[in-house]
Amino acid sequence: MSNAALPVIDPVALTQSLIRCPSVTPADAGALDVLAQALTGLGFVCHRMTFSEEGTPDIDNLYARLGTQGPNFCFAGHTDVVPVGNAGGWTVDPFAAEIRDGKLYGRGTADMKGGIAAFVAAVSRLMAEQGTPDGSISLLITGDEEGPSINGTRKVLDWMAERGETIDVCLVGEPTNPRVLGDMIKIGRRGSISGWITVHGTQGHVAYPHLANNPVPRLIRMVSALLAEPLDLGNDFFQPSNLEVVSIDVGNPTTNIIPGEARALFNIRFNTLHTAASLEAWIRARLDASVLDPARDGADADPAAFYTLKMTESGEAFLTEPGPFSTLLTKAVEAVTGRTPELSTTGGTSDARFIKNVCPVAEFGLVGQTMHKVNEHIAVEDLENLTRIYQQILTGYFAIGGRI
Amino acid sequence: MSNAALPVIDPVALTQSLIRCPSVTPADAGALDVLAQALTGLGFVCHRMTFSEEGTPDIDNLYARLGTQGPNFCFAGHTDVVPVGNAGGWTVDPFAAEIRDGKLYGRGTADMKGGIAAFVAAVSRLMAEQGTPDGSISLLITGDEEGPSINGTRKVLDWMAERGETIDVCLVGEPTNPRVLGDMIKIGRRGSISGWITVHGTQGHVAYPHLANNPVPRLIRMVSALLAEPLDLGNDFFQPSNLEVVSIDVGNPTTNIIPGEARALFNIRFNTLHTAASLEAWIRARLDASVLDPARDGADADPAAFYTLKMTESGEAFLTEPGPFSTLLTKAVEAVTGRTPELSTTGGTSDARFIKNVCPVAEFGLVGQTMHKVNEHIAVEDLENLTRIYQQILTGYFAIGGRI
Repeated sequence: MSNAALPVIDPVALTQSLIRCPSVTPADAGALDVLAQALTGLGFVCHRMTFSEEGTPDIDNLYARLGTQGPNFCFAGHTDVVPVGNAGGWTVDPFAAEIRDGKLYGRGTADMKGGIAAFVAAVSRLMAEQGTPDGSISLLITGDEEGPSINGTRKVLDWMAERGETIDVCLVGEPTNPRVLGDMIKIGRRGSISGWITVHGTQGHVAYPHLANNPVPRLIRMVSALLAEPLDLGNDFFQPSNLEVVSIDVGNPTTNIIPGEARALFNIRFNTLHTAASLEAWIRARLDASVLDPARDGADADPAAFYTLKMTESGEAFLTEPGPFSTLLTKAVEAVTGRTPELSTTGGTSDARFIKNVCPVAEFGLVGQTMHKVNEHIAVEDLENLTRIYQQILTGYFAIGGRI
Repeated sequence: MSNAALPVIDPVALTQSLIRCPSVTPADAGALDVLAQALTGLGFVCHRMTFSEEGTPDIDNLYARLGTQGPNFCFAGHTDVVPVGNAGGWTVDPFAAEIRDGKLYGRGTADMKGGIAAFVAAVSRLMAEQGTPDGSISLLITGDEEGPSINGTRKVLDWMAERGETIDVCLVGEPTNPRVLGDMIKIGRRGSISGWITVHGTQGHVAYPHLANNPVPRLIRMVSALLAEPLDLGNDFFQPSNLEVVSIDVGNPTTNIIPGEARALFNIRFNTLHTAASLEAWIRARLDASVLDPARDGADADPAAFYTLKMTESGEAFLTEPGPFSTLLTKAVEAVTGRTPELSTTGGTSDARFIKNVCPVAEFGLVGQTMHKVNEHIAVEDLENLTRIYQQILTGYFAIGGRI
């Protein structure tokens, strides 16, 4: 059955409405209202929720569901955007959503208000052309993907778990295509952990090094030990894990003073051959083995007395192995664009790292070339094609009864 | 012939008068006036000179000479003092010059107003007891030893050279004794050079390291290369040269950003097996050999394109080899204290590094245990004994007609 009474959403107009809400994290600026209004018009039941945590800003979130039966196809994303950056570098108003020469400009067009609008438009076309699907369609939209990601997707998933609200498969609408729509589907992401090493020494005068204890040579040895060998060589689905030392800081401008403390900051992007816990053990073993100065510290010195390590995990690596879901996505992309997308696990993290705990998850959206940059834009044509791809995915999903 | 009409200077009272001038570099605060007045009273001809250089404060200096014939025995030192430091840690007014339990307290008592006063007192006693010496006695006193040392001793020596004013031997009155008066004479000093390494890279996102060029691993390799082997094992008169990396700084607090630049600061205290120039060549060779990443930079990469090195020399190493001068000093110390002083080259730099270019130079003064610290003080008894030592040195010097 068709639903001729329901509106058919224009993806361009909805993207423009969303862009005109300057929802720089943590601000919502009305973006979720715009979205909820469109979804309610299509028959979605919208749940708005604000999450709080001490030391972080309050964040607005939305879970919307059309239908009550399974299977439940979920589209996930975020309405928050990164700051404008170098405002003088923009040739358009970043929140005016102007179209010039077939391109729609604005902060968040690619990442990822365009993707959200395309999905809503796809659902409206599905409803208009094919009627209510045999199952449910839901949207999990947060305002905290570009920020600390504490009061966002993670807490929406907790809220859903408490209510017994399940999703069966999830497509995240991040801009996955490096250059052209159809380039790339992401079927996994590397994990990310960061570590702060602080080496404790004793300050002193550089002319009397025996009275001081310079932490810098220890830190140099420790960092060298972390960089000495690759973490792995990659596997079938992932590039090699990579450790970057992103800062070393002592902050001593005085040439005749030996400093009392030295710090290093590193980040690891890791594949499914590791976990945050296995990496922390690997790191501590290497730091313990390199921190001591045998000539000075004595045979029974305790490595732990010389340094502290603080680690934070921002996400484990995950993979939705190629199978029915990636095939469904690939076929839809091929049908609309004529391109066979690469199934990739490259790039940064996304909220898919939280969703992978509840169901298979993959990512496909617009072209990300200008995301986070000045003059962020998308091709209007891509927005139309992405809408068609999303509609085909939904059609295909419900055609096989969600068995993926 | 004696000079009964001339005053006999009390070293304690003169030290107190000098301490009460708060001559924290670059301030003179009247200290050179106090000194010049005492010297003029003894028949010295005083030359006051203020030196300037763009970017540095103006500095007052004094060259005073008694007599016109050679040989010219010069005493060198400084009236400037380091700041009070932790003012709350002092139990006395740092500029009140109080005596408590046989100790004279105040900023600059040990380093080195007490030494200057002892020398002036020694000259006054020599004049009173033995008459005008057969030669000259001079004082070269700067107000810029604790500061950048740009408008101080170095420029006074230039001024003297221009006038054909020569000195034949020089005793610097720095507090050379670690614990007890008579511990140590310094017959040389290590040289000191500092270097700033800046490694140039390309900033980027940590998830895309191939698009960035992290300068940190290069800097780690370079610094490791500098620390890999000792500079030397020392020689008969000097401890081994020593390189300390005193700071490494990147200043990137963001775990997902690869920084574009990394810097390291090091200092070398070196013995007479090296010169500043030979060390710079040694350093550049090691940095050139370690900066490149063979897997990334290609076989014909130019190391110089990846880093800059800025070096500053604060003094070459020098040695006044044991001989007649050190024997003269040693015998005077032994006669007064009963101790045989060690002939040492340890510790930091002093203005002797400039004076060694014009004549043999050695250093002997008070006990330096509290120099630069709170509650800086000297034993009043030491001041009397140092005066006697200085007088014996002068007596011995002129007795052998300055042939050292």
